[in-house]
Amino acid sequence: MIRKGESKDLPRVLELIKELAEYEKALDQVTNTLELMEADGFGSDSVYGFFIAEINGVIVGLSLYYFRYSTWKGKRLYLEDIIVTQSERGKGWGKLLFERTMRFSLETHCTGMMWQVLDWNTPAIDFYKKYNAKLDAEWLNCHLECEQIVELVGQ
Amino acid sequence: MIRKGESKDLPRVLELIKELAEYEKALDQVTNTLELMEADGFGSDSVYGFFIAEINGVIVGLSLYYFRYSTWKGKRLYLEDIIVTQSERGKGWGKLLFERTMRFSLETHCTGMMWQVLDWNTPAIDFYKKYNAKLDAEWLNCHLECEQIVELVGQ
Repeated sequence: MIRKGESKDLPRVLELIKELAEYEKALDQVTNTLELMEADGFGSDSVYGFFIAEINGVIVGLSLYYFRYSTWKGKRLYLEDIIVTQSERGKGWGKLLFERTMRFSLETHCTGMMWQVLDWNTPAIDFYKKYNAKLDAEWLNCHLECEQIVELVGQ
Repeated sequence: MIRKGESKDLPRVLELIKELAEYEKALDQVTNTLELMEADGFGSDSVYGFFIAEINGVIVGLSLYYFRYSTWKGKRLYLEDIIVTQSERGKGWGKLLFERTMRFSLETHCTGMMWQVLDWNTPAIDFYKKYNAKLDAEWLNCHLECEQIVELVGQ
């Protein structure tokens, strides 16, 4: 029911990403494409991977991860996103995907796993606290988009 | 003066990491080792890279990066840390390393660059705001250490 994601799963994966973005009224912020996901996930310089939740051949969810690197702690698995399709929520898929990804962090010899949660998302925070995850509130996320970087430092 | 980091630089890199940790009274939290840094940065599954600031053959600073993956935005360069040795602070090395890393995000076809800053670090926040970086306050960082994961999901 939970398996490693493959290149052939990407159309459905992007569909689920867009389903969630639409639900969050942010579909216009999804600039990712199938071509990019293919190149970045399965090319020679792949930077991410994912697990698939599947029932009777239908993909109902995914967890997407990549490796981070802490100067203090070394290699960490980063869980970027867990997405479960609307109709399958509340059936335990999120927990299965979360725990499969956790196990993967051990399989790949990471020193730990990290992720982020929105500070107002109380159900998710409660879920993570059950695992005794450590939550830090004092960091700000900073972003520069490539168009800004081109302006700042040139091509 | 700024160049790509190489395997031979790692002893000095770890020294600078420990210098900063000691300054922050957190040396005991540095569990990373030269062997791990070698395997994770230069093996077949390398997950990070770094730039070196050097003057007359002496390494005085570094910026360490890796690739992240946003389901919405695709490949992002993540700047994990900029470290400049105590005696060379305030001489513009941080800016040089920051901008070299920015350029690298274009060279590697990222859709943007990301990093984090502590919410009380006003000088750094002001520095980043000069670049018009977007700063998000609403995310919590979550961590599980591998010892916890072993307990939670087994080996």
